[in-house]
Amino acid sequence: MLHEKLNWRYATKKMDATKAVSQAKLDRIVDAINLAPTSSGLQPFEVIVVTNPEVKAKISAAAYGQAQLVDASHVLVFAAWDNYTSERIDEVINRTHAERGTPLEVLNAYYDGLKAQYLPRSAEVNYEHAARQAYIAFGIGLTAAAFEAVDATPMEGFDPAQVDEILGLRAKGLRSVTLMPLGYRAAEGDWLNGAKKVRKPMADLVTEVA
Amino acid sequence: MLHEKLNWRYATKKMDATKAVSQAKLDRIVDAINLAPTSSGLQPFEVIVVTNPEVKAKISAAAYGQAQLVDASHVLVFAAWDNYTSERIDEVINRTHAERGTPLEVLNAYYDGLKAQYLPRSAEVNYEHAARQAYIAFGIGLTAAAFEAVDATPMEGFDPAQVDEILGLRAKGLRSVTLMPLGYRAAEGDWLNGAKKVRKPMADLVTEVA
Repeated sequence: MLHEKLNWRYATKKMDATKAVSQAKLDRIVDAINLAPTSSGLQPFEVIVVTNPEVKAKISAAAYGQAQLVDASHVLVFAAWDNYTSERIDEVINRTHAERGTPLEVLNAYYDGLKAQYLPRSAEVNYEHAARQAYIAFGIGLTAAAFEAVDATPMEGFDPAQVDEILGLRAKGLRSVTLMPLGYRAAEGDWLNGAKKVRKPMADLVTEVA
Repeated sequence: MLHEKLNWRYATKKMDATKAVSQAKLDRIVDAINLAPTSSGLQPFEVIVVTNPEVKAKISAAAYGQAQLVDASHVLVFAAWDNYTSERIDEVINRTHAERGTPLEVLNAYYDGLKAQYLPRSAEVNYEHAARQAYIAFGIGLTAAAFEAVDATPMEGFDPAQVDEILGLRAKGLRSVTLMPLGYRAAEGDWLNGAKKVRKPMADLVTEVA
């Protein structure tokens, strides 16, 4: 089941600009992204869902003109926190207390330790850590798209500074990390459609220590 | 379907040391990890599957004594490439040529550009990039475990230098990034089992640009 879905998906090179992903499918993909596990439950990222044609065109221009960013009905921009702050961590504490009922003294004992570890670090180190968490959700989002029979193209090939500027991300304490256009493959125009999936032989991926 | 699986999984705090994950389930989890998409198809990481009790105990000692690393039947260590090299990229070129039949001149045109971009960068920058790819596969591996009704604990809380030393990773050009013990929850001893899953409200995760 999962194998089939992961085998079905590929980095779509040409999207059909006449087809749009439904709101119901988008909602389920975003739900999966939100369910992704993250370090200490911080979820240190946000997702900008771009459907505006002019904004998609600007993002495409900041990404070597990749056409999927225009032809896809939705472009998801994964944006990581630019730093960890006491306020951001407090939000997680308060939400966990409200939702799960964990006593605040228990939560504070744990998260005070985390603050002592994270807050003295440089913004760059904290951003890198936050970005890694976004990548967990990115992988799960791509998997969720496949379950919806929605095509996606995982993209790192863009100028993050330009995308940050286009979306006003730095003012919100965010930095763009990856892009995920969502749409439907234009099979006839996509050289990668139908190509054999190439992966490492298992012996190159796995080493057993038994 | 995916939603149910993602909702079922949680960062298991106590594993049942009397239960072992079957080889068939492990194989399917590793298969999903291998199917994870990565930047330019480089798959810049390996997975060490540790079942040896002494080695699991050493890894646990390097991870604040977390008991799941001993009680789980399998500990997966995700280890990213310490750097990109011409040889490593050539392996991807040759495999893609052999498996997919893409002409070498086409592959070289693309990957020569990648080499020109990656090889002059510092090992640290390249390692960080490789680590991010490992996180995509880490998220998909956690999802795959859930599909197998296998419990897992995503872990960053360990001393990477010690784990590298225990497994001899640096000599192989690898650096440990994350741990994923796989096993079965010991429901009675696990304070987190059955707790409500806490996630951001959608309005805090998603911004629409329509």
